[in-house]
Amino acid sequence: MIIVPGAYSETLALKLAELLKCEVLNVERKLFPDGESYVRFFDPSKVKGEDVIIVQTTYPEQDKRLMELFLMLDAAKDFNAKNVIAVVPYLAYARQDKRFREGECLSIKSILKLIEASGADAFITVNIHKEESLACLKIRKTNVSAMPLIAEYLKKKELVEPMVFSPDRGAAEYARQVAEILGAEWNSFEKTRDRITGEIKTVGEFPGVNGRDAIIVDDLVSTGGTIANAAKILKSYGARKVYAGFVHALLVSGAFKKMIDSGVDEVVATDTIQSAVSVVSAAPVIAKVIPSIMS
Amino acid sequence: MIIVPGAYSETLALKLAELLKCEVLNVERKLFPDGESYVRFFDPSKVKGEDVIIVQTTYPEQDKRLMELFLMLDAAKDFNAKNVIAVVPYLAYARQDKRFREGECLSIKSILKLIEASGADAFITVNIHKEESLACLKIRKTNVSAMPLIAEYLKKKELVEPMVFSPDRGAAEYARQVAEILGAEWNSFEKTRDRITGEIKTVGEFPGVNGRDAIIVDDLVSTGGTIANAAKILKSYGARKVYAGFVHALLVSGAFKKMIDSGVDEVVATDTIQSAVSVVSAAPVIAKVIPSIMS
Repeated sequence: MIIVPGAYSETLALKLAELLKCEVLNVERKLFPDGESYVRFFDPSKVKGEDVIIVQTTYPEQDKRLMELFLMLDAAKDFNAKNVIAVVPYLAYARQDKRFREGECLSIKSILKLIEASGADAFITVNIHKEESLACLKIRKTNVSAMPLIAEYLKKKELVEPMVFSPDRGAAEYARQVAEILGAEWNSFEKTRDRITGEIKTVGEFPGVNGRDAIIVDDLVSTGGTIANAAKILKSYGARKVYAGFVHALLVSGAFKKMIDSGVDEVVATDTIQSAVSVVSAAPVIAKVIPSIMS
Repeated sequence: MIIVPGAYSETLALKLAELLKCEVLNVERKLFPDGESYVRFFDPSKVKGEDVIIVQTTYPEQDKRLMELFLMLDAAKDFNAKNVIAVVPYLAYARQDKRFREGECLSIKSILKLIEASGADAFITVNIHKEESLACLKIRKTNVSAMPLIAEYLKKKELVEPMVFSPDRGAAEYARQVAEILGAEWNSFEKTRDRITGEIKTVGEFPGVNGRDAIIVDDLVSTGGTIANAAKILKSYGARKVYAGFVHALLVSGAFKKMIDSGVDEVVATDTIQSAVSVVSAAPVIAKVIPSIMS
């Protein structure tokens, strides 16, 4: 077994290698002056006859990372890998999982099809937006959850009678999971559309949070607007500290500052995306499923 | 028959539609805040049972354009197109057509494979770097040359005893073709590697160009360094005017200024890439092969 680390995925890849006790292949990556990606495996003979795990997250610069993933998968096959396992800790385009309007491209389906066509024999991702999206893959596939790791991390904090919240009903299951690990209560905010302005608002009435710690959890944070609104509401009800826990921290256009300014005291995320808040490694949950996906 | 225009490809797509006397589908494109592409076909029912021509060039931002191409090809299939023809006027990654060093990804092969996997039934490109690269495609494919159109454009100029040059031996065939159309002489520069510094130099001795017009032609210009050197040499031998003609003008990092500063009087290119020097449309040579590739 050998691990091939992709761009923005090296720390996670190295942790995986440590857990799986396997070698990491050196990879050269560069950009040509016109912006084309260049990827080269050092010593490609090491790939021959091996189970090859390609670790490539897809943020930032989703399209560039996806293209590098496709190139590496195809190259691993060319170099006669026995099995090629694509580990995509954060999978971009997963929110485009249906045609919300007529005529839309079904991006996540198209991309999974290309991962398969590039030569992946198996596919692992972490907290994909909707697990059903993986149904289109014919190869072996697994979606693992790193949310329990976020809960375990928070459990070590000195939490005061914590309550767990999801920013909307869709993420309620995450709130329930984290609450269970913490032995805490949980609840959900709701999203409502203003009948006049069309604006989407986050609403919830939680007087019970007064003087207690609040934890908001979701699979990912992008611009942070919803989380900021939820934090404001919790603070207005007298929450002591507000924690925000995510698997994937995209942190787009000032999301971190927006959350902090709205009353979030600490943001916690995993290393499926490399960020300043990636304090929890998703490597253990990925490493755990690798033996079974290869057998 | 219906044409679907991709990003940075609309002017060419509209010219193609005019020549082929067919409709152009409206397409909505946007970027999500995190940078993911969104593509939507207006009225996808128009695609059903039709020969659908997707026109998507792949510069600038090669990976973004390729991803949009994959999404559109897959969507056209989903919307029950009869045949899907991928027209990629400029195909990125075509220079990575072999493993120059052990372990390199064979990018152009990987990408052509993905175009096929996305649902293209036929593939058309213009002046691909090496035509042999297309051999990996199982679908019908054609590489057309827009170089004669560059020659025809230059023929209308009041050229003084023109001589045509290629910047290296690899592009000599282009110089020969253009010279034939102009009824002119042609010659090639050579690239030599300095034994001490390792630097690649463009060399050539052309005293015959004194007082005459010189035309340098190549399939593409990227940073413009080679062309700038060739122009300097031609000017030093007393060339009257120096023209530079390309199919694909990538014009990376100040290439245009570099060429002008080195003595190039006019840069001419086609619209396979949208640039300020794209004065020649490649649409006629593409339109010409479409009926045969569909039959």
